[in-house]
Amino acid sequence: MKTNNICDLFSIKYPIIQGGMVWCSGWKLASAVSNAGGLGLLGTGSMYPEVLLQHIEEMKEATNKPWGVNIPLMYPDIEAIIDTVIRKKVPIVFTSAGSPKKWTKTLQKYNIKVAHVVSSSFFAKKCEEAGVDAIVAEGFEAGGHNGHEETTTSTLIPQIRKATTLPLIAAGGIATGKHIAAAQILGADGFQIGSRFAVSAESSSHDNYKQAIFNSREGNTMLCLKKVSPTRLLTNRVFEVIAEMEDEGATKEELQEFMAKGRAKKGIFEGDIIEGALEIGQVSSYFKQSETVSEIFTDLITDYSQALQDIQKNSFI
Amino acid sequence: MKTNNICDLFSIKYPIIQGGMVWCSGWKLASAVSNAGGLGLLGTGSMYPEVLLQHIEEMKEATNKPWGVNIPLMYPDIEAIIDTVIRKKVPIVFTSAGSPKKWTKTLQKYNIKVAHVVSSSFFAKKCEEAGVDAIVAEGFEAGGHNGHEETTTSTLIPQIRKATTLPLIAAGGIATGKHIAAAQILGADGFQIGSRFAVSAESSSHDNYKQAIFNSREGNTMLCLKKVSPTRLLTNRVFEVIAEMEDEGATKEELQEFMAKGRAKKGIFEGDIIEGALEIGQVSSYFKQSETVSEIFTDLITDYSQALQDIQKNSFI
Repeated sequence: MKTNNICDLFSIKYPIIQGGMVWCSGWKLASAVSNAGGLGLLGTGSMYPEVLLQHIEEMKEATNKPWGVNIPLMYPDIEAIIDTVIRKKVPIVFTSAGSPKKWTKTLQKYNIKVAHVVSSSFFAKKCEEAGVDAIVAEGFEAGGHNGHEETTTSTLIPQIRKATTLPLIAAGGIATGKHIAAAQILGADGFQIGSRFAVSAESSSHDNYKQAIFNSREGNTMLCLKKVSPTRLLTNRVFEVIAEMEDEGATKEELQEFMAKGRAKKGIFEGDIIEGALEIGQVSSYFKQSETVSEIFTDLITDYSQALQDIQKNSFI
Repeated sequence: MKTNNICDLFSIKYPIIQGGMVWCSGWKLASAVSNAGGLGLLGTGSMYPEVLLQHIEEMKEATNKPWGVNIPLMYPDIEAIIDTVIRKKVPIVFTSAGSPKKWTKTLQKYNIKVAHVVSSSFFAKKCEEAGVDAIVAEGFEAGGHNGHEETTTSTLIPQIRKATTLPLIAAGGIATGKHIAAAQILGADGFQIGSRFAVSAESSSHDNYKQAIFNSREGNTMLCLKKVSPTRLLTNRVFEVIAEMEDEGATKEELQEFMAKGRAKKGIFEGDIIEGALEIGQVSSYFKQSETVSEIFTDLITDYSQALQDIQKNSFI
């Protein structure tokens, strides 16, 4: 086992992080990931503070390995969430969708490690100024909420690597051990996986949602809602309505009104694959059946190891 | 030197292909690439048949290494172009933007090797049926004309690799030796580079265009014109007008009318960076100054070699 700054920072075996995802990553998924040697994150974006509290308690029962929470900083109950996290001594926090300056120092005062999600080098520098412990650089491939720049993971990572020496976690389109090896070559130290875990056996997403992903084909996700907040969705009926509205020049307000009906919950958690918004990454079509977290880790490590052997064998110089 | 199926197919030293690009890749650029050990391609998309003829003659003077032409199959003078290519015994043809069934067999009858550009596994299978010699799989990062699927290179390559055993060239967002190593890990055998060569010393693009690219920053390219033909442009004034039109629901016809003013020629070849369309890939912000093709190759090979060493050193297992 060699040293790796992400493994050292979070005291984990593999530098593999399960992205915090609304309606998917409760304690079952996050604890399974931490128990497998990665870093599991509770996704607080779909949790009221009291629900988070329950998940934290369950998490502490389910694993004695390091774990964390993901907090979208635009969250309306943000102060209650932060308070809960500090009070319950959550060791690691990933923040996103907001300024890293707002909460980083507060969290660190309580010995909490802080990583922040960005989609550009500009915001990576802001993270450095805010004193975060690690950066997650997420590309255009990622499911759900996404950056305005549309920079893909492989275009983004080398630029972030150049902009900062902070430990760097690649996200967006990471689904296999080969993707991990490729992202590492481009400069990443850690690897955040969302979609593959979103449809894992331990994910709290609805079976209809999982099945819709398993049935999806290449090109069946699209980034939409760019006037509101760019979001990658499976191209189901709800997506088609959004796309039509956008084609005809719908305003931000019209799009917001259409979405303000709990569409992510409806799609991902309640399994309404017609009326619900099915957030998922561009790698959606890679997944054909349910896997346990343990099976995913075995495959990731085997595939990564094979990739490292193959690249030497296939070298053209 | 190890074997590589792309090197073998085209009889070249390195499996590095210079993408055929309108207003950039005339005989100067293409011959420099072939002389450096890669595969140079004349971009016929901006050439009348008689101009192509001149470039072919110059090419034959400038290099005795293998080279080829890129032919967008939607080209109005397509029959004259194909006839010229056959008559002048061009050894390699890359086709794009059309069905590979139309011309592949005809070209192969004259011992011409044929590669076809695709943006999905579906079209990769069509290439296989058409009997092409190699496939170029081009992702969302690529400059200029692009696929409708918006699949990024790193999401696309593993899927194409699974769909076909044909020699596979990755394109879109390939700018460094690290990108080459990463794409190779994901399953590519060859590597097509566009943008970096578009702003090289030997490119026939205007200095104003090159300077606009050197001044560009992360996130300064966008895919637009999705109702017409998805195209990645630098976000200059022309782009802003297109974006405004699209935001307000402009029709395909309105957008076509706006573009039907030789905007690519105006921008890339004549250097009007306000009124011209500046086609370039998402890696635009990587380039800060002019490099010769020879310098680019030296850097690519050094960086690729370093990447192969680093990945073993940084392995986390």
